[in-house]
Amino acid sequence: MLRMKIPEILLVESERQPGSLASILTVIGEEGLVVEHLAALRRGQDKTTWEITLEMDADFGGRLAERINALPTARLLGRSDRVFNRHRGGKIRSVSTLDIGSLQILRDVYTPGVARVCLAIRERPELAREYTAVGRTVAIVTNGTAVLGLGDIGALAGLPVMEGKAALMADLAGLSGVPILTDEKDPARLAELVASIAPSFGAIQLEDIAAPACFEVEDTLRARLEIPVLHDDQHGTAVVALAAVRNAGRQAGQRLSQSKVGQVGLGAAGIGIARLLLSRGTPRLLGADLDAGALERFRVVGGEPADLARVMAESDIVIATTGVPGLIRPDMVRPGQVILALSNPDPEIEPEAALAAGAAFAADGKSINNVLGFPGLFRGALEAGATRFTDEMLVAAAETIADLAADKELVPDPLNRGVHDAVSRAVGEAAAASGACRPRRGEAQ
Amino acid sequence: MLRMKIPEILLVESERQPGSLASILTVIGEEGLVVEHLAALRRGQDKTTWEITLEMDADFGGRLAERINALPTARLLGRSDRVFNRHRGGKIRSVSTLDIGSLQILRDVYTPGVARVCLAIRERPELAREYTAVGRTVAIVTNGTAVLGLGDIGALAGLPVMEGKAALMADLAGLSGVPILTDEKDPARLAELVASIAPSFGAIQLEDIAAPACFEVEDTLRARLEIPVLHDDQHGTAVVALAAVRNAGRQAGQRLSQSKVGQVGLGAAGIGIARLLLSRGTPRLLGADLDAGALERFRVVGGEPADLARVMAESDIVIATTGVPGLIRPDMVRPGQVILALSNPDPEIEPEAALAAGAAFAADGKSINNVLGFPGLFRGALEAGATRFTDEMLVAAAETIADLAADKELVPDPLNRGVHDAVSRAVGEAAAASGACRPRRGEAQ
Repeated sequence: MLRMKIPEILLVESERQPGSLASILTVIGEEGLVVEHLAALRRGQDKTTWEITLEMDADFGGRLAERINALPTARLLGRSDRVFNRHRGGKIRSVSTLDIGSLQILRDVYTPGVARVCLAIRERPELAREYTAVGRTVAIVTNGTAVLGLGDIGALAGLPVMEGKAALMADLAGLSGVPILTDEKDPARLAELVASIAPSFGAIQLEDIAAPACFEVEDTLRARLEIPVLHDDQHGTAVVALAAVRNAGRQAGQRLSQSKVGQVGLGAAGIGIARLLLSRGTPRLLGADLDAGALERFRVVGGEPADLARVMAESDIVIATTGVPGLIRPDMVRPGQVILALSNPDPEIEPEAALAAGAAFAADGKSINNVLGFPGLFRGALEAGATRFTDEMLVAAAETIADLAADKELVPDPLNRGVHDAVSRAVGEAAAASGACRPRRGEAQ
Repeated sequence: MLRMKIPEILLVESERQPGSLASILTVIGEEGLVVEHLAALRRGQDKTTWEITLEMDADFGGRLAERINALPTARLLGRSDRVFNRHRGGKIRSVSTLDIGSLQILRDVYTPGVARVCLAIRERPELAREYTAVGRTVAIVTNGTAVLGLGDIGALAGLPVMEGKAALMADLAGLSGVPILTDEKDPARLAELVASIAPSFGAIQLEDIAAPACFEVEDTLRARLEIPVLHDDQHGTAVVALAAVRNAGRQAGQRLSQSKVGQVGLGAAGIGIARLLLSRGTPRLLGADLDAGALERFRVVGGEPADLARVMAESDIVIATTGVPGLIRPDMVRPGQVILALSNPDPEIEPEAALAAGAAFAADGKSINNVLGFPGLFRGALEAGATRFTDEMLVAAAETIADLAADKELVPDPLNRGVHDAVSRAVGEAAAASGACRPRRGEAQ
C-alpha cells in the first residue's frame, strides 16, 4: 500500500576531524540514499551533531544504523523529531479579527448588535459575503481514501495533510481553510453530506478521495451547489502539470497546440490533465490505462483510448501519471519526444534514461507541486464571486504559472507570493470572461 | 417573530451651545428609549456629531427622527454603520501557526514530511490530539431555527452569531471555533450529519437549535460520540444562570441547597437550569410551562410540574426564563422571595416592581451573558481530555463564576480573561474527578 518514500531525519554525532562527515555521507550514498537536507544541530568541543534528512522506505533504517555506528568517528544518536515538532499542536488556528477589549465592542459583535447583521442577511442573503467570513472560507473535505501516496489510511490520519493545505491557503492566499473529515465512502452519501453543510463555506476543495468515487462526488456537487467546487487531486494537479508540460514543450521547441499528446495513466490527475489539454485545443490526445472505467471516462471527455505501445509510438509529448516506477522502458522512447514522467517519488522513467534513449526533453514530477495551484485558484474564484470553476479559469491559472517560471525551470517557486497573486488575478479575470460570476449588486446599508 | 430589541446607532448633529445635547436626550427619553452608549464622533467649529446607541423596535425610528429634526439645535444625519463595519469581512480567520518561509519547512509540514505524521496517527489515532489542531477545534453547529430572540431566521442569517461565538472562543480561550451551518431541521438527520463529520473536531457546541429538536440532537450525539457535546442555549446558559442564582440567594441570605426553588419557563435554558439545580442538591424544585412536552421533560429530569400560581406561592427562589415580558404580576410576589426574571431584553417582572411587592432580592437577565461560560467550559474539557460534559463539570463552572463576581454583582465581567482561565481549570479538575477523561498514555515518538 505504501508507495511513498517518507523523510527520515537522522541525528548523527561525528568527531570534529577532517573526513568524518564525508565518511558518514559516503555510507549513506553507498546505501543508495540521497541527502535531502543537512544541518549542524550542535557543535561541541570535539564533536558535532548533524541533522541529516533522507528519503527512504520505512523499514530501511536498521542496516544504515549499523553501518554508521561501525564508522570509527561517527555514532547514530537517533531520529530527529523536527517534522513532528513542527506539527505539534496543529498547523492552523482560528483568530478573532477584532480585539474584543471593551464591553461596547462585545455588544457590537455579539448580542445585541449582531442581531442587526443577522436580520440584514435574512433579508438579503448575498450580504453574508460582505459581513461574515464565508466568502473567504474553504472547506477541505476528505474521506481519507487516497491520502498522498499512502492510500486509504482514513480521514483522521489524513488530517495533517488537510491542515497543511489550510496553512498554505492562509499563508499564501489569506483564505481560511477548514478541514472536514468524514469516514463516509459512498459517493452519493458523501456528496449529500457536503451539500448539507455547504452554507458554511464560500467554496469546497475535495481532497484525497479515491477514484472513481471522487468523480461522482465532484460532479454531483458541481451540479447542485452555486459555489466553486474543485477536486484538487484532479484539477489542481492538472493545472500545475499543464504549466509544466507547456514549458517542457517550449524548451524542446514544440507547441502544445500543434502537438500530438499521449497520456499514460488516466486516474484523477490524468483525467484532469486530459480535460485541460482538450479545452486548450490539443489536436489529438491519446491515452492508456489498465482500467476500463478510466479509459471510458477518458473517451467521454474527448480523448482517444489506446494501449501503452501506441501512446509511446505516436505521441510528440508524453505525460505519465501512473504511480508505477519504471513503467516506460527506454526502448519505448521515440527520438525527439518530450517526456514528463510525473509520478512521485519515482518516475515512470528517469529523465536521464529518457534523454539517453533519444528524448528531446525529459523531466520527472519533483517540481510539480500542486501548492502552486490551489491557493490562487480559490482566492481568484472567491474574490471574483464565481459560482463555479470553469475550464477557462483552470487554463488561465496554468498559463500564468507557466509564464512565471524562470528560464530552464518548468514551474516557479511555490513560496513566491507574487505567483499566487498573479494566479488569483488571472483566475478572477477568466471567471468574469467565462460567465462564471454571480451578478454584482449595490453595496449594503 | 421578532421578540428582540436591536441596537440602533443614530448620528445626530448638534449646535455647540449649552443645552443642545440635553434637548436631544430629552426627546429620546420622552419616547421611552434608554441611551446605551454615547460618543462624540466629530467636533467641528460650531457643530458636534454624536453617535447615540439606543435599543428599539425595528419600526420605531420614524417618529423619533421627526422629533429630533424639529429641535432648533439638532439634526439627524442618519444611522451609523459602526456595527456593520465591525462585521465587515467576518469576525474570524484561520492562520498558519508556522511561517512557511523556506522550502525545507514546506517539505516538513506538507509533502513529503507530513506523511510521517499521517502514518503515526494511522497507527495510534490518539496522536491526532498532539500533532493536529483537532484537540483545540470546536464545531459550532446551527440550523438557524432559534437564533437569539429572532427565531427561525435560517442558518446563514445566524452565521454572524456563530462567528461571534468563534471569535470569543479564540479571544478568551485560545480555541478554534468552526461555524457549521445546515438547513437540516429533522433532529435525527441533523444528529446523523454532525456525527458524520465529528472526526474533524475535538468538541461540538450546538447553538440556536429550537426546542424540542435540540434535546434529541444533543442526546443522540452525547450517546454516540466520545467527544464533549454541549448545547449552549441549554447548559451554557444554565451554568451562568446558576452562578447568578447562587449569588442572588446569598445576597438575600438564602442558601440554594436549603431553598425551595421554582422555575417559570421550561424551554432549553429552563431544562438546563433544572438539571444543574437538581444535580447540585436542591431539595425541592417546582416548574411551570404552558407546553405539556416541556413539563414532561422537567418531570423526567426530576422536577415537580406545577402551575404558575403555585410556583410563585411556594418557592423561596423564583427563576423565570419564558421570554414573556411582564408575565409575573406584582401581586404574585411572595414577601421575602428571591426573583430572577432572566428573559431579555424585557424581564417577566421589572426588579423594581418585584422589590416594591416585597421581594427580598430581584434582578433581571441583563448581566447573564453566556460568554461567561462556553469558552472556559470547552477549553477545560478539551485540555483535560474529557470525552463528555458531566453535570459535575457544569456545576464546577457555575461555582467558579459565582465565586469570582464582585460584591453586589451576580456574575463577573465576561471580558476578564482570569475568569475564563479559572473556569477552564475548574472544569478540567471536575472532568478528572467525575471520570469523564480518556486514559492518558505515554508521549508519542
